[in-house]
Amino acid sequence: MQTITLNSPFDMHLHLRDNEMLELVAPLSSSTFAGAIIMPNLVPPVDTKEAVLEYKDRILRAIGNDQFSPFMTLFFKPYSKEFLESVKDSISAIKLYPAGITTNSEGGVESIDTVALAPTLNAMSELNIPLCIHGETNGFVMDREKEFMSVYESLAIAFPKLKIIMEHITTKDAVRMLDKYDNLYATITLHHLLITLDDVAGGMLKPHLFCKPIAKRYEDREALQKVALEAHPKVMFGSDSAPHPKHAKENCGCAAGVFTSPIALQVLAEFFDKNNKIENLQKFISNNACKIYNMKPSSKIIVLEKKEFKVPSYYEKGDEKVVPIYANETIQWNIRNYNGK
Amino acid sequence: MQTITLNSPFDMHLHLRDNEMLELVAPLSSSTFAGAIIMPNLVPPVDTKEAVLEYKDRILRAIGNDQFSPFMTLFFKPYSKEFLESVKDSISAIKLYPAGITTNSEGGVESIDTVALAPTLNAMSELNIPLCIHGETNGFVMDREKEFMSVYESLAIAFPKLKIIMEHITTKDAVRMLDKYDNLYATITLHHLLITLDDVAGGMLKPHLFCKPIAKRYEDREALQKVALEAHPKVMFGSDSAPHPKHAKENCGCAAGVFTSPIALQVLAEFFDKNNKIENLQKFISNNACKIYNMKPSSKIIVLEKKEFKVPSYYEKGDEKVVPIYANETIQWNIRNYNGK
Repeated sequence: MQTITLNSPFDMHLHLRDNEMLELVAPLSSSTFAGAIIMPNLVPPVDTKEAVLEYKDRILRAIGNDQFSPFMTLFFKPYSKEFLESVKDSISAIKLYPAGITTNSEGGVESIDTVALAPTLNAMSELNIPLCIHGETNGFVMDREKEFMSVYESLAIAFPKLKIIMEHITTKDAVRMLDKYDNLYATITLHHLLITLDDVAGGMLKPHLFCKPIAKRYEDREALQKVALEAHPKVMFGSDSAPHPKHAKENCGCAAGVFTSPIALQVLAEFFDKNNKIENLQKFISNNACKIYNMKPSSKIIVLEKKEFKVPSYYEKGDEKVVPIYANETIQWNIRNYNGK
Repeated sequence: MQTITLNSPFDMHLHLRDNEMLELVAPLSSSTFAGAIIMPNLVPPVDTKEAVLEYKDRILRAIGNDQFSPFMTLFFKPYSKEFLESVKDSISAIKLYPAGITTNSEGGVESIDTVALAPTLNAMSELNIPLCIHGETNGFVMDREKEFMSVYESLAIAFPKLKIIMEHITTKDAVRMLDKYDNLYATITLHHLLITLDDVAGGMLKPHLFCKPIAKRYEDREALQKVALEAHPKVMFGSDSAPHPKHAKENCGCAAGVFTSPIALQVLAEFFDKNNKIENLQKFISNNACKIYNMKPSSKIIVLEKKEFKVPSYYEKGDEKVVPIYANETIQWNIRNYNGK
């Protein structure tokens, strides 16, 4: 049977939420991933050192073992250099949200002004703290990422030593930026490698595939697939796995977010295998991230095998239920074991 | 108080469904409209003279009065001239669906080939039966109507005496066709005058605004608004009001269709008034249609007044519930009375 061994797979963009949902989803990531960059968009946002440390502690308790490293982030605000020095060792990055652009981003930045934000961004640059960005304007839904490219360009030029991660990119326009500026990097989600707007709204309307940024056109997906499959050194896997309760997701007027983490490695193995690029998955899932973030891989090893696996209709804990992408569908790869178990 | 009197308002594209749903929605159209072009996409489709007459009879019974004329249509198939002569006086148009393009269209046309379809289309042309078309390809959801323009062009050129109605147009590309070919006409829905894809999927996901063709860009909506507000002589109001049961619409994987008929006149009055074009509403809602379809207006008169009206959260009959556009919202115009009542 065909297998692949992944060393220290990392999810470089993950929403673990809090409370019951945290307890439900954290173990689903920690069972297959060695670590993840944890998004700070809680209510209220994670914007103090205490909030970072307390949230990290809640995550570690929800996981209950030491097989998973939560790499913490701060919610971007104008921070002083003194504060950033004090928090530096507790975080891996700072995440910037334009105000109101997605779930729990109301406290984000109203205007991304390279002059006004210079004190914070220069300090981050000097302290080597990466800046992760949700790169969308508040324009027409299909144009929001493309319109944001000029903001990425201004930031890349104004802060050439700052590592800027274009999070969950969805367009060929963002892909093009990778080779244009040395300090621009990107995460790519599982779902944006797989779906287009046609899957969300081309047939029936599919709330479980509704996300922000919204899935785009075929040529955009193709551009993402190309750099992922070749494991372009500036791209990393970041699931943006974003659980919402089943009842909320399936009700009228649902929020954006696709829940992928429990099946991300399996589907990625299937996708890379189908495209005859399975040899590049290790770089996409770990090595590139280690280089970009100056991280050391852990000793965690995951073995996947080419064997059918039926995705559960939902995952639950207590009163909380969450529906994964591909619920009830069969995928061609499965987890064999991890760390010898 | 500001009022407007509408003579014989017509809805030139309406789905009345069948059975309980028909009984629920038919009276909601017949109370304010003088008549409507009734879509034939039942299961099975309305494609015989008997089916036309029986469906018309069920509609009249559901309405229970003579204040509303159901203008019947046939589901397009290759029909003989003899058959079309026999059914001519019972129908107002024939509706063509590309196969599988929307709700109950599985029996539609696989390929719109002007040679293969010539016998039927020539006969329709000679008998002066208009051809209504759901103009979408099976391409990317945002491009489907635009890609269909070449089909409209081929048909308009090949059958210059055939009246071709581009149904529920959503793009500036379709608007442009109106002045390019004498024999191309269009209906415009209420919702496509009001919403863009941003309303469907730009914030939360809104199943009650999910329709086919999907709502497009701002510049498309602007082009539609322009020809509607000026009552361009080749455009008519056609609601495409398409009820789906509340539970189905609000469940996972819902079908396309916006239910607008009970509040269409009120919202149109508000929209035309807000744009200082209320004097053109009569043409958009009736006169243009009468000229295009060679129809006589009825004696039905509807008086609307500028007075707040709260849209119900749903309409129901028996076990059937259906949610209208703008449920629970307040609009600025209301029906004062009809025919002196």
